[in-house]
Amino acid sequence: MPQLRKDPIVGRWVVINSDHLKSPKDFFREDHKVYQGQVCPFCPGRESRTPPELDAVRLDENGHWQVRTVPNKFPALVHEERLEKEGMGMLDTISGYGAHEVVIETPDHNKQMADLTPGELALVFRQYQRRLRALANDARLKYIAIFKNFGVSAGATIEHSHSQIIALPMVPKSVLEEIQGAEHYHLTHGRCVFCDILQQEHQDKDRLVSTNNGFVSFCPFAPRYAFETWVMPQAHQANFIDLDEQGINDLAGHFSDIMNRMKRCLSNPSYNFYLHTAPMHYGRPNCYHWHIEIIPKLTRSIGFEWGTGLHIVPTFPHDAARFLRES
Amino acid sequence: MPQLRKDPIVGRWVVINSDHLKSPKDFFREDHKVYQGQVCPFCPGRESRTPPELDAVRLDENGHWQVRTVPNKFPALVHEERLEKEGMGMLDTISGYGAHEVVIETPDHNKQMADLTPGELALVFRQYQRRLRALANDARLKYIAIFKNFGVSAGATIEHSHSQIIALPMVPKSVLEEIQGAEHYHLTHGRCVFCDILQQEHQDKDRLVSTNNGFVSFCPFAPRYAFETWVMPQAHQANFIDLDEQGINDLAGHFSDIMNRMKRCLSNPSYNFYLHTAPMHYGRPNCYHWHIEIIPKLTRSIGFEWGTGLHIVPTFPHDAARFLRES
Repeated sequence: MPQLRKDPIVGRWVVINSDHLKSPKDFFREDHKVYQGQVCPFCPGRESRTPPELDAVRLDENGHWQVRTVPNKFPALVHEERLEKEGMGMLDTISGYGAHEVVIETPDHNKQMADLTPGELALVFRQYQRRLRALANDARLKYIAIFKNFGVSAGATIEHSHSQIIALPMVPKSVLEEIQGAEHYHLTHGRCVFCDILQQEHQDKDRLVSTNNGFVSFCPFAPRYAFETWVMPQAHQANFIDLDEQGINDLAGHFSDIMNRMKRCLSNPSYNFYLHTAPMHYGRPNCYHWHIEIIPKLTRSIGFEWGTGLHIVPTFPHDAARFLRES
Repeated sequence: MPQLRKDPIVGRWVVINSDHLKSPKDFFREDHKVYQGQVCPFCPGRESRTPPELDAVRLDENGHWQVRTVPNKFPALVHEERLEKEGMGMLDTISGYGAHEVVIETPDHNKQMADLTPGELALVFRQYQRRLRALANDARLKYIAIFKNFGVSAGATIEHSHSQIIALPMVPKSVLEEIQGAEHYHLTHGRCVFCDILQQEHQDKDRLVSTNNGFVSFCPFAPRYAFETWVMPQAHQANFIDLDEQGINDLAGHFSDIMNRMKRCLSNPSYNFYLHTAPMHYGRPNCYHWHIEIIPKLTRSIGFEWGTGLHIVPTFPHDAARFLRES
């Protein structure tokens, strides 16, 4: 039977209808391979093919990098531009001020993120933190989005494992809605809505995928996509920047487990993930709780979803979580 | 130079960056063909392969149909179910009450919507109105979404030209945001925001694609997708149901022109369109203005857009409109 479910944070309704499509094997999977020229610009030895390095992790004395951050060669927003606001009649514009960076996660062209060791993943997460701190020095930037596209149907255009950072002069819509929802919940309940969700997930148990000391992964009650999975710190924390060394290590171990469960369960799917963290200089850290949302790309969005904002999801989250737990 | 632009109705920001991708020939186009079994269930003579007919247009004495509406064989929501609401701790559910119908737009398997004559298109739009009126009798239904997926990358699974109707027990998020934005604008300005947009489009001219007596098409100032095009009645009207015979004929002629411009300009792209009209029994018709949004499927959404709600668009709307005008 189809069911309509409401997301407790932003109030978005979704339809879950598992009558015709349900288990991992039922999904049509697109090839995750991306077009690859003969020469990968992200491989060691070709550092001159990227714009000048912004930051890197080098572990050995020979200066070989393990993680490397460079400006995106085709940036969506540019750092050099002056921030200018303009009106055109009833219409508003801002110049495209911001930053767009690429984090190359490994020197090894043939490793996916799921193949990285927890130790290697920890270097990537620490690099995210360093870039967040560096970009936070620019007061004109209000939000920094960290995300990854893996596989061509998730929008990747380069095969070598990498994630991206886009810094924005305003808080974007989806994050703003989450923050407003969380602030409203805090106002009416006096508690963090994400902490309450975690409590409910631990109580209901059937949507849990995996837990360790510091982190929990679950398939949210009202997902937008089949097998959507959220990774959340068990303890309240508004900003990913504030995660300490032990936390980074816990996250890396947990994330490695989740990435490998997805890879096994869904036959190495294309996916996107994005980090939702508090905006720069956010004044109400009691309200917000950072997390990572992972979306395997198993179905296509259709006109109905674009036109209405109502997602139709073919798998109940408790079924998705069970498949992921058993993988 | 990239530019951030704000949608005047819902306040959504978008990034427009045309540095690297701009004209119709620059887009990678996926094949719009869909998998087709040997036997099309929508062709004349195979009426028994669909669920029982809900409505149809028959023009000749032999009873051959020209447009035919049937229940979707794999419905997202079901009409038979009782509407039940339930709470699970902090989580809300409603049973999946609603309707999901298919409008087969032509008996000719080989015709796309762009190939239909204005007279044939008028029959399709009249059929939409008849279904809206029939479904409006069920007071439990709050909103009726009409949309079309054309081509596999737009989510179509059957080749024979058809559109879909989904009736919902609540107003979905995107429509609700538009209505709330329009009501807020009306409260502060005393005017319809869509009428003001039309005035600005006629004044600026460079985003106009085509106009006739009753309708105007333009590429909106802050689009979410390249070559996004809106079709809007020139005169204020909240509900598509209220469009009269002359209006239907004007719309059909105008829509045929736009469909063919898109087909020529973008080499027969996959696309989605959806009708945004007032909810059932909407009490503030001065605020809302129905329209059709057409989204050619030229680029893939990426993790960044899903994670932030911020779309990055590679073509300025005045460029898109010029290409469409010249096609």
